[in-house]
Amino acid sequence: MRVKTKLPENGVETDLTTREGLLQQFKKVRAFTLELVEPLKTEDLVIQVTEHASPAKWHLAHTSWFFEAFFLEKALENYQTKHPQYSYLFNSYYLQTSEPHCRNKRGNLSRPTVDEVFQYRDYVNEHVELFIENSSEPDFEKWQPVLEIGLNHEQQHQELIITDLKYMFGQNPLHPVYLKTERPGTGQVPELTWSSFSEGVYETGHPGGSFGYDNEFPRHKNYIHDFKIANRLITNGEFIEFINDGGYDDPKYWLDEGYSHVVENGWRSPLYWKKTDDGWYHYTLNGMEKINPNEPVTHVSYFEADAYARRAGCRLPTEFEWELAAEELPLNGNFVDARHFHPTQISSDSDDRGLNQMFGEVWQWTQSAYAAYPGYETFPGALGEYNGKFMCNQYVLRGGSCATSRSHFRKTYRNFFHAKFRWQFTGIRLAK
Amino acid sequence: MRVKTKLPENGVETDLTTREGLLQQFKKVRAFTLELVEPLKTEDLVIQVTEHASPAKWHLAHTSWFFEAFFLEKALENYQTKHPQYSYLFNSYYLQTSEPHCRNKRGNLSRPTVDEVFQYRDYVNEHVELFIENSSEPDFEKWQPVLEIGLNHEQQHQELIITDLKYMFGQNPLHPVYLKTERPGTGQVPELTWSSFSEGVYETGHPGGSFGYDNEFPRHKNYIHDFKIANRLITNGEFIEFINDGGYDDPKYWLDEGYSHVVENGWRSPLYWKKTDDGWYHYTLNGMEKINPNEPVTHVSYFEADAYARRAGCRLPTEFEWELAAEELPLNGNFVDARHFHPTQISSDSDDRGLNQMFGEVWQWTQSAYAAYPGYETFPGALGEYNGKFMCNQYVLRGGSCATSRSHFRKTYRNFFHAKFRWQFTGIRLAK
Amino acid sequence: MRVKTKLPENGVETDLTTREGLLQQFKKVRAFTLELVEPLKTEDLVIQVTEHASPAKWHLAHTSWFFEAFFLEKALENYQTKHPQYSYLFNSYYLQTSEPHCRNKRGNLSRPTVDEVFQYRDYVNEHVELFIENSSEPDFEKWQPVLEIGLNHEQQHQELIITDLKYMFGQNPLHPVYLKTERPGTGQVPELTWSSFSEGVYETGHPGGSFGYDNEFPRHKNYIHDFKIANRLITNGEFIEFINDGGYDDPKYWLDEGYSHVVENGWRSPLYWKKTDDGWYHYTLNGMEKINPNEPVTHVSYFEADAYARRAGCRLPTEFEWELAAEELPLNGNFVDARHFHPTQISSDSDDRGLNQMFGEVWQWTQSAYAAYPGYETFPGALGEYNGKFMCNQYVLRGGSCATSRSHFRKTYRNFFHAKFRWQFTGIRLAK
Amino acid sequence: MRVKTKLPENGVETDLTTREGLLQQFKKVRAFTLELVEPLKTEDLVIQVTEHASPAKWHLAHTSWFFEAFFLEKALENYQTKHPQYSYLFNSYYLQTSEPHCRNKRGNLSRPTVDEVFQYRDYVNEHVELFIENSSEPDFEKWQPVLEIGLNHEQQHQELIITDLKYMFGQNPLHPVYLKTERPGTGQVPELTWSSFSEGVYETGHPGGSFGYDNEFPRHKNYIHDFKIANRLITNGEFIEFINDGGYDDPKYWLDEGYSHVVENGWRSPLYWKKTDDGWYHYTLNGMEKINPNEPVTHVSYFEADAYARRAGCRLPTEFEWELAAEELPLNGNFVDARHFHPTQISSDSDDRGLNQMFGEVWQWTQSAYAAYPGYETFPGALGEYNGKFMCNQYVLRGGSCATSRSHFRKTYRNFFHAKFRWQFTGIRLAK
Repeated sequence: MRVKTKLPENGVETDLTTREGLLQQFKKVRAFTLELVEPLKTEDLVIQVTEHASPAKWHLAHTSWFFEAFFLEKALENYQTKHPQYSYLFNSYYLQTSEPHCRNKRGNLSRPTVDEVFQYRDYVNEHVELFIENSSEPDFEKWQPVLEIGLNHEQQHQELIITDLKYMFGQNPLHPVYLKTERPGTGQVPELTWSSFSEGVYETGHPGGSFGYDNEFPRHKNYIHDFKIANRLITNGEFIEFINDGGYDDPKYWLDEGYSHVVENGWRSPLYWKKTDDGWYHYTLNGMEKINPNEPVTHVSYFEADAYARRAGCRLPTEFEWELAAEELPLNGNFVDARHFHPTQISSDSDDRGLNQMFGEVWQWTQSAYAAYPGYETFPGALGEYNGKFMCNQYVLRGGSCATSRSHFRKTYRNFFHAKFRWQFTGIRLAK
Repeated sequence: MRVKTKLPENGVETDLTTREGLLQQFKKVRAFTLELVEPLKTEDLVIQVTEHASPAKWHLAHTSWFFEAFFLEKALENYQTKHPQYSYLFNSYYLQTSEPHCRNKRGNLSRPTVDEVFQYRDYVNEHVELFIENSSEPDFEKWQPVLEIGLNHEQQHQELIITDLKYMFGQNPLHPVYLKTERPGTGQVPELTWSSFSEGVYETGHPGGSFGYDNEFPRHKNYIHDFKIANRLITNGEFIEFINDGGYDDPKYWLDEGYSHVVENGWRSPLYWKKTDDGWYHYTLNGMEKINPNEPVTHVSYFEADAYARRAGCRLPTEFEWELAAEELPLNGNFVDARHFHPTQISSDSDDRGLNQMFGEVWQWTQSAYAAYPGYETFPGALGEYNGKFMCNQYVLRGGSCATSRSHFRKTYRNFFHAKFRWQFTGIRLAK
Repeated sequence: MRVKTKLPENGVETDLTTREGLLQQFKKVRAFTLELVEPLKTEDLVIQVTEHASPAKWHLAHTSWFFEAFFLEKALENYQTKHPQYSYLFNSYYLQTSEPHCRNKRGNLSRPTVDEVFQYRDYVNEHVELFIENSSEPDFEKWQPVLEIGLNHEQQHQELIITDLKYMFGQNPLHPVYLKTERPGTGQVPELTWSSFSEGVYETGHPGGSFGYDNEFPRHKNYIHDFKIANRLITNGEFIEFINDGGYDDPKYWLDEGYSHVVENGWRSPLYWKKTDDGWYHYTLNGMEKINPNEPVTHVSYFEADAYARRAGCRLPTEFEWELAAEELPLNGNFVDARHFHPTQISSDSDDRGLNQMFGEVWQWTQSAYAAYPGYETFPGALGEYNGKFMCNQYVLRGGSCATSRSHFRKTYRNFFHAKFRWQFTGIRLAK
Repeated sequence: MRVKTKLPENGVETDLTTREGLLQQFKKVRAFTLELVEPLKTEDLVIQVTEHASPAKWHLAHTSWFFEAFFLEKALENYQTKHPQYSYLFNSYYLQTSEPHCRNKRGNLSRPTVDEVFQYRDYVNEHVELFIENSSEPDFEKWQPVLEIGLNHEQQHQELIITDLKYMFGQNPLHPVYLKTERPGTGQVPELTWSSFSEGVYETGHPGGSFGYDNEFPRHKNYIHDFKIANRLITNGEFIEFINDGGYDDPKYWLDEGYSHVVENGWRSPLYWKKTDDGWYHYTLNGMEKINPNEPVTHVSYFEADAYARRAGCRLPTEFEWELAAEELPLNGNFVDARHFHPTQISSDSDDRGLNQMFGEVWQWTQSAYAAYPGYETFPGALGEYNGKFMCNQYVLRGGSCATSRSHFRKTYRNFFHAKFRWQFTGIRLAK
């Protein structure tokens, strides 16, 4: 799990095993968090509108607490925490650490203020940077992996900052603009075609030798049957056809739980969509926009992705199929580094008859329930709680999104959410 | 309902029927709202932690919207509203005006910002003040009562700003201090004694000739039986005895709904109380404080007040008894004008063997269900929705509190809340 | 509280202070309970479809348990209870007796069987009857009042058996018939006219000298203002006009809580009503029937009664007004003794220009919150829990209904329910 | 899917492709349903105490409706349904057929009566039997598979009748006895040992040639890694150790959702267990019994099974591992045919150092999320809704239970429930 080699493929330009490399990445990642909240007003940072979307202020503090709880308090003698109750307030679900403040009450705290949280970040940065520069060699060796996990952890929360802000703004009748940006994309979308793969025993999972989460290990064999996978993501235009064709009214293609959820919540379209006399609009971080039929559909639940696929006579890929299909592709895509904050279309010009839009853009729902790989072992200690505990009633998503950092992503990366959730940038790729 | 005479008794030093008087009071009331939020950080103004306690930002905007919706838009030709959606966002329950934004979502709005809301207030102030100074005499005559209602409405919300802030801060494990103040009070509390009143037909309600809410009218006759009323409020010390004596565990003295509520919510003390090894503490706007046994108990529900009274072999007074007892007393007390933000004790020195603590301090629960007086009529128009709609399942409280403006209060004033609520400054006076 | 005199007015033909009288009434009341369940199948006796409507089997057992717990176990030496757990299973809310089985789980018990419950009734009857016949004079004197309460208690549950069965059958898509009966009523309903009463001090409440519940005492003085009360109940036809006229869509005339309740529950008509192409039908204990516009409207909540009244420019009477208006009238009406199980119309022929339909037919909602009369005292002991605990958030109904026993009713009788409930035979009489 | 050959292995002694065989099995299965309700009182058949456990009356009717809806109404010209609303009342989730009556309201129907449901069963039996005996050869060929599905469907509901009755009786404080039986079992339980299997590509799923549900198809290849599986089920005694050792209090070994569920529901032991001064008791269909430490633990959720396994340093098997381990074993076990209605112990005498208790006894939780096999296709038509719709958030259980019919079971049989459910006979077998 240690990054032993420079790994250009996963987008990290620097060698995190060196002090210089780690310090540079630490500063870059911590600074990007600040860049993300830079366009905001103080008021935007404190509000929580639903249990699953936390205030940006909480993310800012929690990512600092992580360095404090798992590194500074253990690695530094005589380390003084910034505030004795921050551990309680900004813990998440790490039960072995201390009793966490309720997840749905993160928006109940006006104090500490945003400024105090910024001071907390500075305080943590200072101590971490001093350690990276001045620690003994054995200490650096020992704690480097924890710092690398801390940076990956912060990158995950950067994605959540974006999606949680979108959710908060999306509920506001004033439809605030987060940041005005221009998205590329012209011409027609290429036709939906299929890439075929032959059955056999294949290896899935992280090969080791660089950073990965526990849930990507161990690399193991799978028997994969013949399958075909679509050359691109499903577009808004295709999903509008599904709506117009009565897709939400026809229980035949829906999972039983999915259809109940649709009826109880009155779902008639993806999240953020609004039908007007002038057609479909949706809220984006650019404000309200007329929907571009050529862009990938996003903010759909597993239920909707699955129903769309069944109605089309197809299915969603398994995560094993997806990883096999991705294996040989260059790792390019519309990641958050491009600062579009929204998926973008491909034009038929750029279509190379191969697989497009596999990385970045939107997380692609797979039909695979989130489960341990054969031989899976949780890492020891409190960080080990991380992934094993959530292997229940969730579905794996692959590919990263327009809110994911390029340097955080790997082809073996397994994201996971409950089937009902839509506030992430989630989309649909078909298989059969 | 028009203020026709200077009414020193209800604390208004100025004649609101004159332009000068109204302008002075308008500036004073509007300024006091700002004074109340002055000690706060931006973060403190936006959060809503429960449906019944709104963010201070919402109160700031709503009290301005009130002037806009019921006065400026109707009285001024060509009035341009500050923002077309503020009416939707800052309306409360005035159904005849427009569909209001959900009460429990007032804390979901990071925008407009606090600064924008201050600008909204300034904009409204400017237009109202211009009208008071420059309107024609018939226009002034016509709209003066609406402006007076608007000021009283704002004073009600000032009280809510205080109690809602307290509720938000009280939930925060950091126990933020709103404002450090010193409360008077030394010596012993006088013994509990009784004042007797003889049965007969008495008049209750507002006599007219000055401002009052619709629910105080008309003055009407009541047959009141012999009763006695206590000389002072129940103290923290007395309530601690109730607790120690098993008061919360003994269903015999509780209303059926009250005891169910106690069990379901795990109530073991008034709101904000916390037992420590060092005895009882409570959260106040001064921060956490050791409880002073001589101060009046507050933040108790009707259920607790009623159970306390029954267990003491007494009962709560009716609102008619209370008003009769209050009739001859000078209207003095610990109102918000004293800026204690908490009830204060009386010492036996100041006891004149009469009734003490009848005004200010804490709202006193009566056993009277909130209902229309015989001959009650709602005022015409949207403002008329105000009181009649709430005459169901609520109980009347009398006397004002340490968060009530002296100039807002009258002896005929009827406050009302559901039996379960505790976040107001509510307390107990016994009768028998 | 002792019945000291024969009281033909309240319908009891027999003197309950004598052994013969009490025995006769005991047998009559206990037999009428059996008559009520005689048309049922075993299956109909065990089901509970909502918390507030208990299975008939529970009523059968609970009314026997009442005699056991409050009389047999205390009055008879060496009394052996029929089954040691019946006290737990068939207790209701008498907290001083033992921990009761949850109210909403009364329908979870298939055992004891209906036959076992009938045996339980026989067992209790036998012991009670032996006591009435053979007890010593002082014992008879001592326990006669408790037996009289037991009989009144059983009569209350007879009314609930009827309304709870109706609720259960009304939910069944097969619309089972309880009993086919013919209801009288022809011709036109008399016009709505008003009887006037002059203001003054009047006495309200039970004068003593015969049986009454604690909540009817003490008789006390009220100041009643001038009022008028309608000559008859509101009819189905009039209520249909309210519906057609948009009554359910217009928040202006509704209590705030009432309108929320209407919206949340999708109420568009009284309970049991169903609109068809052939007009309005409703479920009755006769099965589904086309609604007779001349019959009194029933199964309306306080919210609907209040909204109807306000929209008509009137209001509901207070319970004090109602009792004053009823005072001089002969106590006749459509009680359960007539076995119609539904309110009936009056025809203009029978109209004597006075007050009609004051007794029997439907319980008439008053605007009076259920509260203690001045000087009210709960009776000592466990039976004393009975009424005082419920004096919160309920409204008083007067007049009895088509499901009330004539011998159970008095003009001072105070029934009470929460504002939202509709499964009792409740209706509307206007005042102004 | 057609039974083409006599298949002694799955316990069907008769050839269901012949008229004689099918008729015999039809009579046998339909009669066994009646045998199961024979010990009951009418009251026991109508009550529903939770959404997921239906009344026995509903099961009796629903299994008859199934034959009516999917066979009689389609196969017989001029078939007259017994009652036009039964289709609505006794449908379950077959959305393509008609709008079903709400699942949680099955216990709200006192009518039709139990007798009427028995008549309904007779009516359906008569028509089915006539068809089997007298239909044309092509008609018999065409409808034989549907009848076979109907019989399997009824056998599934027989299992539910048993578990739903147990749930209802288990809630009753009187702890009624369903049927007094003696269970075998003496001596010590053999030590926990392990059987090893080597990794490779294996086939999983139904090979065809006989009856199976859609979810067992198609047989397909899986890569299975080295694993070991325990020789027997976890016992009550071992689970008591888990409890005594603080297993329910230690979040470390629980799934995040599992631990939340435990805390919210106050779980401290398996369902039906009760701690007394005399040790652990549990409710069985024999009534309350002292727990036999040698019998397999049952009525545990997936959460508890998973936590038990993790704490033991093991895991649950996958369904692929389980099927591989079961492949060579003789299909014997404690099925419902033995009429024990409870799992039984093995003694060390009968231990053959191989795998014991693989069939019958308790359904064994696997760690496999319920999902489609590669190449899975739903059967066309309304019956096809059956399995595909539920492939979400459920876990596969294998092995059958003491409430499963021997002739209904196959080694490829996939049962599935949500992780939280405990009212089925579910238990634990470890793997590693």
